[in-house]
Amino acid sequence: MVIPSEKRNIFQVKGEVSLDDRERLHGHKGAAIWFTGLSASGKSTCAHRLEKILHDMGCSTYVFDGDNVRMGLCSDLGFTEDDRTENIRRIGEMVKLFVDAGIIAITAFISPYRKDRRKVRSLIDEGRFVEVHMDCPLDVCAERDKKGIYEKARAGIINNFTGISSPYEAPESPELLIRSHTLDVGKAALRITGYLKEKGIIC
Amino acid sequence: MVIPSEKRNIFQVKGEVSLDDRERLHGHKGAAIWFTGLSASGKSTCAHRLEKILHDMGCSTYVFDGDNVRMGLCSDLGFTEDDRTENIRRIGEMVKLFVDAGIIAITAFISPYRKDRRKVRSLIDEGRFVEVHMDCPLDVCAERDKKGIYEKARAGIINNFTGISSPYEAPESPELLIRSHTLDVGKAALRITGYLKEKGIIC
Repeated sequence: MVIPSEKRNIFQVKGEVSLDDRERLHGHKGAAIWFTGLSASGKSTCAHRLEKILHDMGCSTYVFDGDNVRMGLCSDLGFTEDDRTENIRRIGEMVKLFVDAGIIAITAFISPYRKDRRKVRSLIDEGRFVEVHMDCPLDVCAERDKKGIYEKARAGIINNFTGISSPYEAPESPELLIRSHTLDVGKAALRITGYLKEKGIIC
Repeated sequence: MVIPSEKRNIFQVKGEVSLDDRERLHGHKGAAIWFTGLSASGKSTCAHRLEKILHDMGCSTYVFDGDNVRMGLCSDLGFTEDDRTENIRRIGEMVKLFVDAGIIAITAFISPYRKDRRKVRSLIDEGRFVEVHMDCPLDVCAERDKKGIYEKARAGIINNFTGISSPYEAPESPELLIRSHTLDVGKAALRITGYLKEKGIIC
């Protein structure tokens, strides 16, 4: 038996569940918390601490970092300017869908270029994109770096290394600026949580 | 004041929130429901209906289809075999992260190649990947097609069209086979919901 298409709504592909519905279910808004800063500036640590606080408040969260993105979605990309741009573009498009799913998506990528971050911001509804600049002097980052990658970059063993052989363009007006060499990670995460409350992203 | 790295755990990037934690919060498991089938076989309609049922049960869900992926994450890809493979690879990697976020991710893509679907399956933990074959005869799909794309494909105006000028490799052992020309979309969605309960993905 063939059921007529119109009876089965075959061509109606519009979603039956909206972002509003998902946000009502989760009890908070979907949003992107976009950390940017030099390698070893504390992005990942703060991202995970923030996730822990938000999760304990009952929020649906997810953290994206090199570990789960560079190995998977962007495993075909290197660190040239073009590849970094494509890396951030894909992450931006993915994060957009997480936000649309009503999740608080937290990203921890150097994302050194202003134009790339601007592009991601433009993908996401206003008020749902929170840029957090982890502002830490290069020397402090290099000193913290236990893996010796700054040393290798300075010796020319690693190429295209942000801050050494590749530029870092600091945000001009991020939603939040964290001087991560003078602020404890827990306090930094709480400051971001406070901002999210203030803006009505969480209750 | 510079706070010592070790005190601030700068290099600890391991997540503080686990998949288990997220699943406990959501009250169900993270999983991928992967629809596959010809164009106009009813993938999107059934995906959205399934989402509606799951959402009404309190599940965290998201539907991926051409509308939100082909325009964004995969906007640089066409329909050659290589591009289709890369398209499915990226979607698979993204879906993997949604599953890890404890979401029920529902995808509605033709995904014509067995090797590509196998690859996606291998990315996701066993028991969390549910392949649903929307099995509908080509003629029925072509008849349903209000946009006239099958006609254009047959006339050679559209190239690389699955089922006409490009192969569709049906799944050999999908978790679910839905003969979508003989089963009402609501009943099909309920059958999938029943399977998810049976497997303990939802309660």
